[in-house]
Amino acid sequence: MIYLDNNATTKASSTVVAAVTHYLENCYANASANTAGYTGADVPRRTAAGQLAHLLNAEEPDCFLFTSGATESNNWIFSALNGSRLRKVCISAIEHPSVSEPAERLGRNGCELSVIPVNRDGIVCIETLAELLSPDTQLVSVMAANNETGVVQPIEEIAQLVRARCPTALFHTDATQAIGRIPIDLQGSWAEVDLMSFSAHKFHGPKGIGGIYCRPGTALLPWLVGGGQEAGLRSGTTNTPGLAGLAAAVGQIDVALYDEVRDRRDYFESQLRGVLSVQLHAANALRLPNTSCFSIAGTSGEEIADQLAARGVIVGTGSACSSGSLSPPKTLLAMGVNYTLAAGTIRVSLSRTTSIEELDRLVALLVEIVAVRGGSPQLPGGGTPPWR
Amino acid sequence: MIYLDNNATTKASSTVVAAVTHYLENCYANASANTAGYTGADVPRRTAAGQLAHLLNAEEPDCFLFTSGATESNNWIFSALNGSRLRKVCISAIEHPSVSEPAERLGRNGCELSVIPVNRDGIVCIETLAELLSPDTQLVSVMAANNETGVVQPIEEIAQLVRARCPTALFHTDATQAIGRIPIDLQGSWAEVDLMSFSAHKFHGPKGIGGIYCRPGTALLPWLVGGGQEAGLRSGTTNTPGLAGLAAAVGQIDVALYDEVRDRRDYFESQLRGVLSVQLHAANALRLPNTSCFSIAGTSGEEIADQLAARGVIVGTGSACSSGSLSPPKTLLAMGVNYTLAAGTIRVSLSRTTSIEELDRLVALLVEIVAVRGGSPQLPGGGTPPWR
Repeated sequence: MIYLDNNATTKASSTVVAAVTHYLENCYANASANTAGYTGADVPRRTAAGQLAHLLNAEEPDCFLFTSGATESNNWIFSALNGSRLRKVCISAIEHPSVSEPAERLGRNGCELSVIPVNRDGIVCIETLAELLSPDTQLVSVMAANNETGVVQPIEEIAQLVRARCPTALFHTDATQAIGRIPIDLQGSWAEVDLMSFSAHKFHGPKGIGGIYCRPGTALLPWLVGGGQEAGLRSGTTNTPGLAGLAAAVGQIDVALYDEVRDRRDYFESQLRGVLSVQLHAANALRLPNTSCFSIAGTSGEEIADQLAARGVIVGTGSACSSGSLSPPKTLLAMGVNYTLAAGTIRVSLSRTTSIEELDRLVALLVEIVAVRGGSPQLPGGGTPPWR
Repeated sequence: MIYLDNNATTKASSTVVAAVTHYLENCYANASANTAGYTGADVPRRTAAGQLAHLLNAEEPDCFLFTSGATESNNWIFSALNGSRLRKVCISAIEHPSVSEPAERLGRNGCELSVIPVNRDGIVCIETLAELLSPDTQLVSVMAANNETGVVQPIEEIAQLVRARCPTALFHTDATQAIGRIPIDLQGSWAEVDLMSFSAHKFHGPKGIGGIYCRPGTALLPWLVGGGQEAGLRSGTTNTPGLAGLAAAVGQIDVALYDEVRDRRDYFESQLRGVLSVQLHAANALRLPNTSCFSIAGTSGEEIADQLAARGVIVGTGSACSSGSLSPPKTLLAMGVNYTLAAGTIRVSLSRTTSIEELDRLVALLVEIVAVRGGSPQLPGGGTPPWR
């Protein structure tokens, strides 16, 4: 299998697997037991928090709260910031559904919800955001990097604007696609970010574990009550194998590796455009180094992804969450891409180990599939495609 | 390490570890992707639900919804049964905090919360329950087996009483300690149970995965919104390694093995009483075959557990969740055990692989530790201890 859907989820490295296995089979005791100091079950959470604080330059390991993943983190943030009393919230038009749906639910329950549009390159319109903000805005949420297009948002600029315009508002960013792929400095350029959510399985850690960075002084209401884990805010038996896997995955992150990933992604796009009429989305924006999102006119992205999968190559068609649905990626629609073209979208997302050979194979298969469908492989010197 | 704290959590079997590892390292794709039929990522959830339906005799695999564990399941149930509008709820006095705390929160917000007492044997008082129920009761929650004492509640009788007295109420049981240790038949003796929560790590599955049995026709409101997983009720990337591990663990359950576990537990208690003055809790009640809960007068359970751990033997002191606290187990207090004696409580919980030799070692260490403390090992023919 050639796996090119790393924005949906990633493969756990052998180091991660070894860490998970150790805490399933050898060091399996309960981290909340009074004897945890003897069994070692108290180690994974401490290690995971320490590794994250180091990687992201957080003030202290205690800034991190652990959940089952970013979806839970996002639901928590929108529910527990005095959820029922949130009266003014602002999100971008391209948020993941785990942000936009809780926000829309607030909107249905009387909260004033503003949605910040994006421009044709998929970047949040700062000018509109500035107009939408007011001193009584309570929460602003803009994702760090988009799952569909890979577009990296100007988080530093947005967070500073929010702080300046509404000093009492909290600024949240869903960094699920960003961690491990671009540099993050929570005391540097991201010093105005109050809350940040993440999932380990997007950076080669295990599924079922993630969390929230919560800047010191930012109060979250309790989310799961019970045994009192996570400082009484998120109860539930500590997922020691998951945390050990997360810690191992964070320890293996080297953002510099993504310079080479970017080179390979750019090579892929260049090869692709040489042989097929494709529209690359957000090609002018700053993007995650690993993501390429494009449409082939007159095709169905899901049909092509299906045919690629039948030949052993896995790509995405936007968001993995929109399973079974035939609706096109919402991010592209928000960027003004027309419905028909958006429906023909393929998302190729590389990992740090994706090879040139794998990408060559994908290009060859795409040409083959489009030709059989009666599509229009670009002839050398061919004209401008109709949508330009 | 001799591990005798299996009510806190359990060791994953090698079969479970192999299943988890396979889905971390080889079959790691996203179960919600349109290509999941090709990658096999759609298999673990289907297998887990099918295995559970078979083991517990549920109507169909679709009765199961998956979460990160029983704490999340319990919080969901108390939040999403029209949470804010629940006006009349009834729970037992010995529920796990992940049930009692959400219930108490409802109580603080205007819901009429009734608490059913237990008798000195730790069994829910059916007569009092009958008096507390009224036709407008909406939710009744009684755990299947207690984590501290192991007492098994008469769920069949309680559920039938609830159905008879308040036909529109939902009956929920937290079966976290029961699954795998006692027979459960959701279409037989438990046919009146509407909702049941569980965690895989209590039956040798992985931490971080669990769920809810939801009888067909019982409506739960959405809990986590976003990608639409779990029939739109609990979004979040499907934890395929966790589900594969859960499925493997369920496949290895053989309740009949617990006949031998009961024999070993009874042997342990007999040996213990032969050499030490102990008070066995709930000894007259039907208990989980693997659980022994006792107090040694004039001692601190946590101190003894600490000294045992220093010698390589891990036991509990009640609930693992009450970590760090010096408060005695709440279940014992609800049973009328006095505070001082309750503070001297040790919980020994066996697994299916616990050996006689391990139990003999525990008895010998307990005698040694109590003697060094200046406690009172029982002399042959010694008198009745003062608390009787």
